[in-house]
Formats: sequence, C-alpha cells, structure tokens
Amino acid sequence: MILLRSSFGEKLKVTIFGGSHEPFIGVTIEGLPKGQKIDMERVQEFLGRRAPGNSIFSTSRKEPDLAIVQAGLHNGVTFGMPVTIIIENKDTRSSDYSKLKDIPRPSHADYTARVKYGDTLNMAGGGPFSGRMTAPLCIAGAIAMQVLENHGITIGAHILSIADIRDDSFYDSKDITAEMLREITDETFPVLSDDAGFAMQEAILFAREEGDSLGGVVECCAIGVPAGIGGPMYDGVESVLAPIFFGIPAVKGVEFGIGFVSTFLKGSENNDAFCFETNPEDNETKVVKTKTNRHGGILGGITSGMPIITRLAFKPTPSISIPQDSVNLDTGENATLTIEGRHDPCIVPRAVPVVEAAMAVGLLDLML
Amino acid sequence: MILLRSSFGEKLKVTIFGGSHEPFIGVTIEGLPKGQKIDMERVQEFLGRRAPGNSIFSTSRKEPDLAIVQAGLHNGVTFGMPVTIIIENKDTRSSDYSKLKDIPRPSHADYTARVKYGDTLNMAGGGPFSGRMTAPLCIAGAIAMQVLENHGITIGAHILSIADIRDDSFYDSKDITAEMLREITDETFPVLSDDAGFAMQEAILFAREEGDSLGGVVECCAIGVPAGIGGPMYDGVESVLAPIFFGIPAVKGVEFGIGFVSTFLKGSENNDAFCFETNPEDNETKVVKTKTNRHGGILGGITSGMPIITRLAFKPTPSISIPQDSVNLDTGENATLTIEGRHDPCIVPRAVPVVEAAMAVGLLDLML
Amino acid sequence: MILLRSSFGEKLKVTIFGGSHEPFIGVTIEGLPKGQKIDMERVQEFLGRRAPGNSIFSTSRKEPDLAIVQAGLHNGVTFGMPVTIIIENKDTRSSDYSKLKDIPRPSHADYTARVKYGDTLNMAGGGPFSGRMTAPLCIAGAIAMQVLENHGITIGAHILSIADIRDDSFYDSKDITAEMLREITDETFPVLSDDAGFAMQEAILFAREEGDSLGGVVECCAIGVPAGIGGPMYDGVESVLAPIFFGIPAVKGVEFGIGFVSTFLKGSENNDAFCFETNPEDNETKVVKTKTNRHGGILGGITSGMPIITRLAFKPTPSISIPQDSVNLDTGENATLTIEGRHDPCIVPRAVPVVEAAMAVGLLDLML
Amino acid sequence: MILLRSSFGEKLKVTIFGGSHEPFIGVTIEGLPKGQKIDMERVQEFLGRRAPGNSIFSTSRKEPDLAIVQAGLHNGVTFGMPVTIIIENKDTRSSDYSKLKDIPRPSHADYTARVKYGDTLNMAGGGPFSGRMTAPLCIAGAIAMQVLENHGITIGAHILSIADIRDDSFYDSKDITAEMLREITDETFPVLSDDAGFAMQEAILFAREEGDSLGGVVECCAIGVPAGIGGPMYDGVESVLAPIFFGIPAVKGVEFGIGFVSTFLKGSENNDAFCFETNPEDNETKVVKTKTNRHGGILGGITSGMPIITRLAFKPTPSISIPQDSVNLDTGENATLTIEGRHDPCIVPRAVPVVEAAMAVGLLDLML
Repeated sequence: MILLRSSFGEKLKVTIFGGSHEPFIGVTIEGLPKGQKIDMERVQEFLGRRAPGNSIFSTSRKEPDLAIVQAGLHNGVTFGMPVTIIIENKDTRSSDYSKLKDIPRPSHADYTARVKYGDTLNMAGGGPFSGRMTAPLCIAGAIAMQVLENHGITIGAHILSIADIRDDSFYDSKDITAEMLREITDETFPVLSDDAGFAMQEAILFAREEGDSLGGVVECCAIGVPAGIGGPMYDGVESVLAPIFFGIPAVKGVEFGIGFVSTFLKGSENNDAFCFETNPEDNETKVVKTKTNRHGGILGGITSGMPIITRLAFKPTPSISIPQDSVNLDTGENATLTIEGRHDPCIVPRAVPVVEAAMAVGLLDLML
Repeated sequence: MILLRSSFGEKLKVTIFGGSHEPFIGVTIEGLPKGQKIDMERVQEFLGRRAPGNSIFSTSRKEPDLAIVQAGLHNGVTFGMPVTIIIENKDTRSSDYSKLKDIPRPSHADYTARVKYGDTLNMAGGGPFSGRMTAPLCIAGAIAMQVLENHGITIGAHILSIADIRDDSFYDSKDITAEMLREITDETFPVLSDDAGFAMQEAILFAREEGDSLGGVVECCAIGVPAGIGGPMYDGVESVLAPIFFGIPAVKGVEFGIGFVSTFLKGSENNDAFCFETNPEDNETKVVKTKTNRHGGILGGITSGMPIITRLAFKPTPSISIPQDSVNLDTGENATLTIEGRHDPCIVPRAVPVVEAAMAVGLLDLML
Repeated sequence: MILLRSSFGEKLKVTIFGGSHEPFIGVTIEGLPKGQKIDMERVQEFLGRRAPGNSIFSTSRKEPDLAIVQAGLHNGVTFGMPVTIIIENKDTRSSDYSKLKDIPRPSHADYTARVKYGDTLNMAGGGPFSGRMTAPLCIAGAIAMQVLENHGITIGAHILSIADIRDDSFYDSKDITAEMLREITDETFPVLSDDAGFAMQEAILFAREEGDSLGGVVECCAIGVPAGIGGPMYDGVESVLAPIFFGIPAVKGVEFGIGFVSTFLKGSENNDAFCFETNPEDNETKVVKTKTNRHGGILGGITSGMPIITRLAFKPTPSISIPQDSVNLDTGENATLTIEGRHDPCIVPRAVPVVEAAMAVGLLDLML
Repeated sequence: MILLRSSFGEKLKVTIFGGSHEPFIGVTIEGLPKGQKIDMERVQEFLGRRAPGNSIFSTSRKEPDLAIVQAGLHNGVTFGMPVTIIIENKDTRSSDYSKLKDIPRPSHADYTARVKYGDTLNMAGGGPFSGRMTAPLCIAGAIAMQVLENHGITIGAHILSIADIRDDSFYDSKDITAEMLREITDETFPVLSDDAGFAMQEAILFAREEGDSLGGVVECCAIGVPAGIGGPMYDGVESVLAPIFFGIPAVKGVEFGIGFVSTFLKGSENNDAFCFETNPEDNETKVVKTKTNRHGGILGGITSGMPIITRLAFKPTPSISIPQDSVNLDTGENATLTIEGRHDPCIVPRAVPVVEAAMAVGLLDLML
C-alpha cells in the first residue's frame, strides 16, 4: 500500500509505503550497489533508537518495531534487485480519532489534509503525516549508513537544544572523530554535555506534566566524506539534502555550516582559510584543509572534505492536552478542542536517528 | 551551452544554460500553460532589480541585462512550446582570473570545483557558481509571477537583516496585503523600516571601505495561495521550495514560518488557533483562518491559505580585498591571497528579487 | 514488496510490486484525477480476461485473481491519494524450479537474470520476468480505461494472427466504432473472423499436444482520442507507448499504423489525404479527417483524431516440453533440458487484455 | 533555444535544442564519464554521413554541418561538466512555407502541430518535426560511440530494404565482427550486397523522377555488449531503446531479434539453444553462447552477450511533388496541394547513421 512516494534520490530511490493504521508500513530501496553485506541486527538496533516507549520522555504506546526483509537480500547481501523491508503494525486502534475529524488540531495537518483530500483520508494517528512514517526512513538510513561506513564515512547527530536549553555544538568544528560520533549515538538521550542533557530531560518532564510540549534543534555531522561530491546550483549537496530533511514532520528550518549565524559575521570573519596539513594516513603527503569549518563542509554545493554539519529546527509537538481554540468544520462554528490520550511531549530525542537516516540516504545518493 | 541543469520543477521545468563568461546565458521554461500573456517589459523591469550597477552598493561592472525572447512566445502569448529567453554577455574579460587558478579563494567554490572538475573548468567570474546564473532564474521567476498573479497570488521580499541590523518582520503576520508587498518591491533597497534601511546601507558602505563584506537575511512572503497545495512528506511545499532556495549561491539556511524561533516556544505558544472569519470577497460566507501565523502558511507540507513566509540566510560575500591565508595548489605551499578588483560588498540587496523569483517558480510548479 | 518499478508515466505513475511467488502482487497508481468513480466489478471482470485457466488454451494452474483495494478509494471514488490494489497469491509452490536453476531454459530470462543478479534471485515461476507481473498492469489499465471512457475513448484489441493463421485487420481502417470494439473484447477468444478464430484454436491445441508452443500478433485500437495529444520527438505518442508495450514479456516488435508495410509503399500510396467531413455530433460543422488511416492516428508524434492502431509481435512461449540443448552452469558442461509440468502453449489470447491495459495507461498519461 | 527536450537517458541525458530555421541547433550531453578523450574529427565525419547533399539521392540543399564545441571539453577530454555542441544553420530561408500554413501536407505533422500549438509555431522546414533535428542526435551518438568503443562495443547499421528490394540480413546471425560493421559504415550507401544496393539506388532515382518517394528498413547491430545489461519489465533494453528509435521522424515500427518473424515460428523453432564455446580471448576458458541468435541479444529485457539486432521501419517521405488532396484550414474547403521545391525522395540512406547514433546513446545510458 504505497500511500507516499519519496522520489528523493536520483540514483538511490527510497519509497515509503503503508501507513500508521494500515496493516504495515515499509520501504523499498532501489539502486543499492550489488554485493553489499547488510547487518540486519544493526538495522534493528538503529530502528530501536527511534522507537516510542524506549524512554520516559515519549508516548507510552508500545510498538515493538520489527524490520522484516521481504525481498532484495540473499544471505544478508544485496544482489541488484530492490530491497523491501516492512514493519507490521501491532497497535492500530483508531478509536480516538472520530472526534478530531471535524475539529482540526491547531498546527497539525488535519485541516490542510482535509482541504486537499476531503474528509475521506484516514487521519487516525496522523495518517500519512504521522511521525511513524519516519520508521521506514530509519530502515533505509541504517542500510545506507552501512554502505557509507565501507567508504570511511561516519554520521552522528545530537540534541543541540530543547527550548532554550543548549548543548555544546559541533559548530565550526573541524576535529570531529568517528569515535566521538559513535559515543553520542550510543546514548539514549544523545547530547555532548551531560549537564545540558539533564536540564533538557527535566524540561521535557515538566512540559509533560503541564500537558504542553517542547521543540528543539538537532545537529548532525558526517565525517569522512571526500571532497568533490555534489555540483553547482541545483545539483548542490544542500539542494539534495534539504528536501529529505524538510520531509521529516515538524521540521521548520534547515541550515548548513554556521547557517543563520554567518549573516552576523563579516566576510573576513566568516571565510575559512585554506591550509596544507599532513595526511594522517601516511604522515607524509599533504592534504588541503580549512583552518576553521564555518562553511560546514560544503562550498559552492560541493563537499570540501571537511565535516558536513547541518542543523534542523523541530517545532514543539502540536498535540497538547491544554484546551485550544479551533473550528468545527461540520457545524461551521468556532469550537474548543481538548485532545485526550497521551502524547509525546517532545519528539526531538526520537528525531535524532531520523535526521541521521535522512543524512545517510541523501549522502549515499550523492555518492553513487 | 547548457552548463547547468536545474531540474527543479515536476511540471514546470526550468533549465538555466550558458555562463557568465560565455557569449550568453539563458533559460528555458517548459510546462507553462497555453495562452498566457507575458508582459516582457515587466520581465525586463524585474531583471533590472537584480542587475549589478543599479546602486552604489554593488559592483560597478556594467551589464545592461537585456532579456531576448528566442522561442515560445507568439505576440507575447505562450502557445505550448517551451519558452527560451537569453541575455547576451557584454563584458566577459577574464583577465584577472589566471592568478586565482592555483590559489583558491577562501569560502569560494574555487577549490571544490577544482577537485570535482579538474583545473579545466573556466572559473573566471565564478563560472557556473557565479551569482550571474541567477539572472536567468529571475527571468523565469518574473514570468511565473505573472501567471501566479492571474490566480490572485502576490509575492514580495525584503531585506530582514544585514549583519546585526534588523528590519521589521512579516514574522507571524497574518495581515499582509498585496499592496504592502508591491510597495516594498518597488524600492531599490527594499525594507519595511526606513531607519533600518539607512543603517544597513551605511554598514555596507563601511564594509566596502574596509575591503570587507557583509551577509544578511531575506524574508519572502506569498499571499493569495489557496489552501490545499502540496502534500505529505517529500511532496511538501518546503521540500519543493528548499532545493530551489539552496540553489541560490551563498544561501546557508532556509526556514519557514517562525522557523528556528519555534524551537524556543512551547506547543501552547507556537500553535496557531483556527477560527472562522467572514470571507472578504462576499462579506457573507465564512472562511477558516488561523489567529496567528507562526506556521507560515504551511501545515503538514500543505498550504493553509495563510501567507507563506520564508527566510533565507546569505553568508557574507567571500570575495574581499583583505589579504587571506590560502594554499597554492600548484606549488604545494601555503600562500597569502589578495583579491584585486572591485567586489560586491554585500549581495543581499540584489538577492531580494532572486528569492522572489525562486518562490514564484516553486509555487507555480506546485500549482500546475 | 516492490520488486519492480515501472516509472512509465510522467503524470500517471504506475508501480508494480510483489512477485509471482511472493505473498502477493499489486500496483500503485499515482496521478489519477480526484473524484473519479471506479467500478471495481468491471476491474475484476477485466482481470478475469487475463486469468489463466479461463479456457482450454492456457495452463491449468488455478489462480482466482481477486483485486483487493488497499488505499486510495473512498466509496469507490478517487480523492487525490495514490490508489493501491493487491492480488493475493494462492498457489506459490516453487518445487519444480530447483532443476532450472543451473540449466537455463533457452530463450527465457534464466541465464540473463543469473548474469545480472547472481543465482540468488528467486526465479521460480519466472520471478520478476513472469507473465504474472502483467496482472497488476491489467488492474491499472482497467482503471485508466474507465477514466478514458468518461472522455469518450474506447480501447479494444484482438488476435491478429497465431503462427501463420491471420484474422481480418483494422489495418488502415478509419471506421471503427466503439460497439465493434466492445463486441470483440466481450469474447473469450477475441477475433474479428470466426473462421480464423477456429483455425487458431486448433493450431494451439495441436501445438500443445506436440509439447510445442506458438506466438502471434495482437492488434489494438483506440478511438475517440482527440487530435493534438503528444508532441515532437521524444514526447511523441509512440515514444510514450512503446516502452510500456515492450515491457510486456515476450513482445519482440511494435508498429503503429501500417508499420513495416508502409516501407513497401510509395509516398503517393502511403500518404493519407485530408478531407473535411460533417461532424457526426451536430451534423453541421465540419471536421478534418483523413480518407485513409495508414498513419494509425499519429502524425509527427501527435494524435490526428483518427483511430490509433498498433500491433505487437509476441514470440512463441519459450517453455516447451520438447527436450532442448542448453548448458549446466554449475558443471560447465553442455546439457539437455526437458521442462516438466504443464505450460501455456500460447500466451497470445491472454495477452490481449494486457495490450489494452498498456494502451490505456499510456494514453491516460499522455492526456492528463 | 531549447525547443525540444529529449529526456531519454536516466544517467546519460541528451537535450536537443534550437531548430532548423533558428540561428543554430545543438545538443547538450550530461552524464558522460570524466576523462574521456573525444575525437571531434571523427564526430564531424560521422555527422557528414547524415548530411544532405552528400549523394545524388538526397535533397540538394547545402548545409555544411560543422559541429562547434561550446562547453564541456578541455583539450578534447571530458571533465565532468555537460558537453554542449552546436551547428550553425547557414540556409534558413523559409520563403516556401507560407503556402503550407493553411493547407497541411498529407501524412506530415503540419495538421497535428497546428491543432496542438495553434498556427503560431514556425513550421518552416518542418519545425521541431524536421529531420534536421536528428543532426544533434548524430553528434551525441558519435560521442557515445567513442565511449562505447573503449569498452569493446561496435555499432553498425545498413539499409535492409528500400520498397521491396531487400539486402542480405544480419537476421539471426551470431558471427558478426567489428570489421564487418566498420566496412559497411564506411560506405556512402551502406548495404551488405552490392547488387541489392544498385537496385535500391535505381529505385530511388526512379521515384525522384516521378516526384514520388520511397521508404525502407534499417537494420542495426551492436556487438561486444556484455551479458547482464538491462532489467525486467520497464527497465528492459527494448523499453530504453524503443522511445529513442520512435523519436526519429518517419519511424513506424521497431523490432528486436527476428521480431515479427518470430510469430510465425514454433517455440521449438524460435528458441535459441545455449552452448559453451571457447573464449576467443584466452582460447581456454568457456563462455555461454547461443547457437542461433533469433532473440537478438536480449532475453527478459537483459542482454545475453550475443549481438543486439534491431530493425526500424521508415515510411516513405510524405513530401512528394505529385498533387495531393488536402484541406484549406483557412477557408474550410477541400483543396489540392502541390508541394514545390526539391525533396528527398528517400530518407533511408541518411537515416542509417541516425539509427546507429540512437543505438549508441541508448546503450551508453544503459551501461553507465
């Protein structure tokens, strides 16, 4: 049941199908090179990082997301046909949705989806706008990441901020190591500074008690990407990655390098000087580096060999328990809406692996 | 000479060809509906807003950009064949470039282009990475804008900030009128607040005297877009617009609605309540609006009928007169680079119509 | 489980997924206009025409192909989301295949698939090369046909020849009516001349007794297509239809109008003179017609308003019971292969609705 | 001036622009691998084979087609940017066309183009439907051929028939050598049998004297293509090649292998038995071949390693001097049309290199 087509990817095509209240959701990945060994245990583990109910900070709905390979792998190895993997939906009760049908949730897709598709679209659980649609993206990303690793590329993301509580940043950093990235991605609540992490978790718990929600920023980094990937204008790395990032529900902003901060600097402050450094691989030859990395690894749409750094803004979850003003589309009257049931007070922690997955899929597409 | 292919656009395809130091640059627009009257004088006027040399704030190089229709219009009306328009390049001396060939300009595409294409690509004037490539985009945008106007849509942008000097914002606004947008786009230096405008111009002049450069933010708004345009995930309005925006040289960040600011708010603060309002067209029926517009006219990737608001971060121009550290790729030694000639101390004012053009092309593609 | 991606269709996208020995096969159709009433009983009926076991002339394997709507229809009406329909596979034993794994069947895809995908692809039942993959195409075609009917377009095909036994032809005809087309498509063994039909059936029965197989030609006609659809060169009607036709297994040739026969004629014999005819709809105005229809309704890649006529050559089924020379890819020795089990002695009768479906999908894509 | 977009090619994109009565026509080729040495003299020579006026059999209009490289080659070597090459049009008088504007030429695109584009399209010289649009295709093909040659692939075509005069055929052949192909492509009038060639030339001269025209069949062969290129269904080699072939003006039919003839054979007669042969490269290892080549090098949409063989039917040129019945679209009356000026009595000889070029472009796209 392909409800959605993600045609991102020129060479790597990723199609997400099914829905949160259908029998299953899944993904088909076309264009993977032949002979790639895919470790499905690691895919499963990666998927676990996105899963709800894996911490006290998220909705308690239990969904043991099990990635089931349907086609395209033989003894765990790709052989040139598309790879299809599905997740069965265990818990698809849609009892609570009837009420929302006529009274759209503020800042949710209820109203705009109704204008576009009529009242026939099953919006239970968010329908095709559900955050659950990112689970198949995580599967594709986990697979892309394994292929990228074979080329020496490591991807890692962390929570840069929740509301106004801010973690340390990769901001402008040029000395990020694969080990650093692996360390943060091993954490349940991936941050660089423990202190910031504790404060963020408290803020989320407090928002939950208030029936409110919080947003935040996820910062993602890819190291080991060779210089020379991408192209000018619409072939640029940013133009390939941005639509995948904006396809993640709740993303309202995307920036590369130091992004909006660069607008406050003079050219002489923002420019990253080039220099020769000794190649760490042979301690002999010289390689071109930049002394700083405000450009975030991309110049003129083409990778520079420096770490690629991006930041995504996630708005606070629109589903809150606090009563809100809305309209009743059936009666034509203004209405007050109280959304019942438990809701994720902050999706940012669960969004971290999703951002990594989007980065992996986009980079692999660029490199094929 | 198609040097670049912009395959943005599913239904509206815009191809930019030629180059800044080729005999001409141009654009082909495929997918325009039949029977559209195109006023080429207005296209020419729009192109004039982007042109260099139209104010003291930009490089003095003279290029009287004249849009010459080559194909696709009959008595100024589209008839179903692609529209091709070119601009002849009058001034294509590339004498100054030889020196830059081996010493890449910091934060420019010189180095990454050389890694990708070798030293054979003619990077004089920036080559395919040149800001000049946005002139054909302006032609396409000016034409798209005329088609959109026939559907009651108006687009306008202004300089939101230069360095740390900030103009008023459409931020969260729901009451923007076509007249307001037309007023700002009529100005040479489009801002909402004259005071901010003066301060910005002084800052630019000062940067120029120092041989330095400044960046800034352009805010763009589209009103009159009906609700129901776009789709979930990768069909979302943001995913269609973002790659066109990031294809503009020097853009390092893109946000929709209040963007990164939404991450500081609680759900209860960020959500835009729905309400019924009397339809201004008939003063009788009711239409659904939101009381605020933090979402910037897009929910779940689909337009809500409220003004679409976006902001783009432009980094400071990398070409500055101040000596900079770089490398000599020929000798393998570190080097100091002093870029001669006059350079645009701030491209943000000239970028304003380019952002409008990108918005117009993207929106028309979504609406066809 | 998308094993195959059919990206034919610019505006109408048809994706076929699953496989003959997977739990199911299905199709997703994107781009159907909103508000189209789809009669699923007629879709089911159309699918029945392709089904095996519906006559003595085909393999006896029983598959009651039931089209199950998964998404995209509400009360039988399209609403703008993709339509997904699946068929569950009842009979997926693959016991007989093991032997074929190492000894490729002559003129089958066994060998070429193995070169491309290795020996890991499950080729039981033909795998992705199976004629069964045309069942989802029939579903898409039956739906496209209903949309086309609302625009006054009727499609019908018949068996033009089996081996050297030839039916009458639409060849050069300009007076084909919707009724004529409906009459032939109502038949189990669709031919224009009963005599030819009997002879063909006897020939097929005889080939079956010999353990041999036969090929033939299917001729397909579409009437009511308005003039002006298509475009020059690669936008031509033939260039859109041909890849869909050649995507049908066993097709070795495609021609439009009188096709290869036109090469025997002089220009003065082949040219179709234009003339004015009285419009049958109002008996008053004049419409442009051609006196003959050797061009088959397409001139310069654009429809002329005359009936569109195409012919497809189907080679004889490669699976025969007669022992054949082949190679053993495992041992590296030449080998003799005897294929066991019952095989379709002639797929041409079952291919008739498949050709109609391909025509419908291609034409609807062109007209959207 | 891109009047036409050929988006054939997934990886190799070929765009043809300009027109027969515009200042120039040209082609942009995207996706060529880096570092390919392109011999432009050979491109020019290849282009000469298509040129009119190179023999007594074609129109006497002189167009010394000179291929001028505009971008993408540095010292004759590709470096990763698109290659653009143009031909200036020397002789673009359109004086004779005015009369044809209202009286469409039978079996020409005049009428259908007018329905689609109105009477505004400049159809002088055939406009975008002109055979002249194949000159840029020849440039792209000549370049693709040089890249293919580096992979051991040779392409050659010959005139299989003119009217009912038939040359020998590669039909079912498995022993075609690169030398054989080069020999025929060196000829002005490429045929296998001199006797047939003389008869064909006489027939063409005779048709010209009569003011009439002839059609014919071109047979094209590619050898050295490795097994395993292509894929099932719509990824099949035939589905990739057919739209390019049908994009050549006047093509009414395309067949692969023995094509329509296979429909007359039994499976036991048509199947190509597999056998092991000694590898000619090392005289030691064994390779899989087929004893016959009725399948024409493609099984299940995938190459088998045997020669790829295809045949294209060209209808007789519709422009003849003999008076013809037509309509006057201006007056609404039936009319008689006499086309003045010299016309090509048979385009088949000039179509030979065009078919080779189309094959080369399609194969290279499949192999990248």
